[in-house]
Amino acid sequence: MPQGQPESVPDDGLTTRQRRNRALVMVHTGDGKGKSTAAFGMALRAWNQGWPIGVFQFVKSAKWKIGEEEAFKTLGELHETQGIGGPIEWHKMGSGWSWSRKAGAEADHAADAAEGWVEIKRRLHAETHRFYVLDEFTYPINWGWIDIDDVVETLANRPGSQHVVMTGRRADPKLAAIADLVTEMGKVKHPMDAGQKGQRGIEW
Amino acid sequence: MPQGQPESVPDDGLTTRQRRNRALVMVHTGDGKGKSTAAFGMALRAWNQGWPIGVFQFVKSAKWKIGEEEAFKTLGELHETQGIGGPIEWHKMGSGWSWSRKAGAEADHAADAAEGWVEIKRRLHAETHRFYVLDEFTYPINWGWIDIDDVVETLANRPGSQHVVMTGRRADPKLAAIADLVTEMGKVKHPMDAGQKGQRGIEW
Repeated sequence: MPQGQPESVPDDGLTTRQRRNRALVMVHTGDGKGKSTAAFGMALRAWNQGWPIGVFQFVKSAKWKIGEEEAFKTLGELHETQGIGGPIEWHKMGSGWSWSRKAGAEADHAADAAEGWVEIKRRLHAETHRFYVLDEFTYPINWGWIDIDDVVETLANRPGSQHVVMTGRRADPKLAAIADLVTEMGKVKHPMDAGQKGQRGIEW
Repeated sequence: MPQGQPESVPDDGLTTRQRRNRALVMVHTGDGKGKSTAAFGMALRAWNQGWPIGVFQFVKSAKWKIGEEEAFKTLGELHETQGIGGPIEWHKMGSGWSWSRKAGAEADHAADAAEGWVEIKRRLHAETHRFYVLDEFTYPINWGWIDIDDVVETLANRPGSQHVVMTGRRADPKLAAIADLVTEMGKVKHPMDAGQKGQRGIEW
């Protein structure tokens, strides 16, 4: 997209430079494809800036989206070994988060999701990362596993310069209200409508 | 997005496996953010599969989207030096394409765009890549610099297994008609509406 000019200049007491560098809350929602892939595409830019990145995937299966994960792990290793780009932490809910996985424990997705949010909240307070991807985050919110008001308050009052991008269908209007950027990915046409299943390299 | 089940199974004489691996034509359009970033996010999956990737950016300025370009160049080097992932070719129109840039020549964007398409067409015939990103490709089509009927015919009849994703606003209906997947990125809210300009790590 062209960088363009803003349509209006707000009376918020900020200089253009301060406003330009204000950290953003972003939401990718809608029924179409591209919500998560666009979030990971943005993370490439963040990596190239050398920013610490934290990815938190609220998915039930550890098999999902392995393509991005592998690519970013490779990029994260480049940071560690050669100092190129930024450091990357990649956490996937699956059957429990990596930081607390208990062998043989029964999966409790509601508890896992709540635990994931507590960890993200802790990191936002500590300014652990500069760019956060909360992938498929709208679902645990919509299922009542994570309190939307807590999310809104935490994001609105996060310290420092931390960008947060969230993905998932049916984003809560409260989330959209505090977001700086909301994109609705609309499904116009999808291969599954024509009887095609997902395939490697495209869906994962 | 969950992998899910197709809504219907077409009577096209293909097995599920054949249908699953059918190469796709994809279009990311609409006025919202995320068209290109989602295309590059998909390219991460293709890279992880070891597929040869060709990126062709129909942009006028060489400064755009430098974040993705740097990240993919790094990934491409990993392929060359360590055999990880797939090979990447990244071409940007800017003031003439890399394969034909003439020092001191006046920029002729219409001729450059047409030349870019001729090269892509040649590569599609030769099956040079397995995953193509034609970034901002709708503009030279809409401006009449590239013939839409030629694009449609070439894509519909491309040999082998070559995925093609195209981005840009106002995709021609003929393009959408032959596409397997069309996503409309709708702008719900954008920081520029609130007087904020683009910033590093987010817009580039």
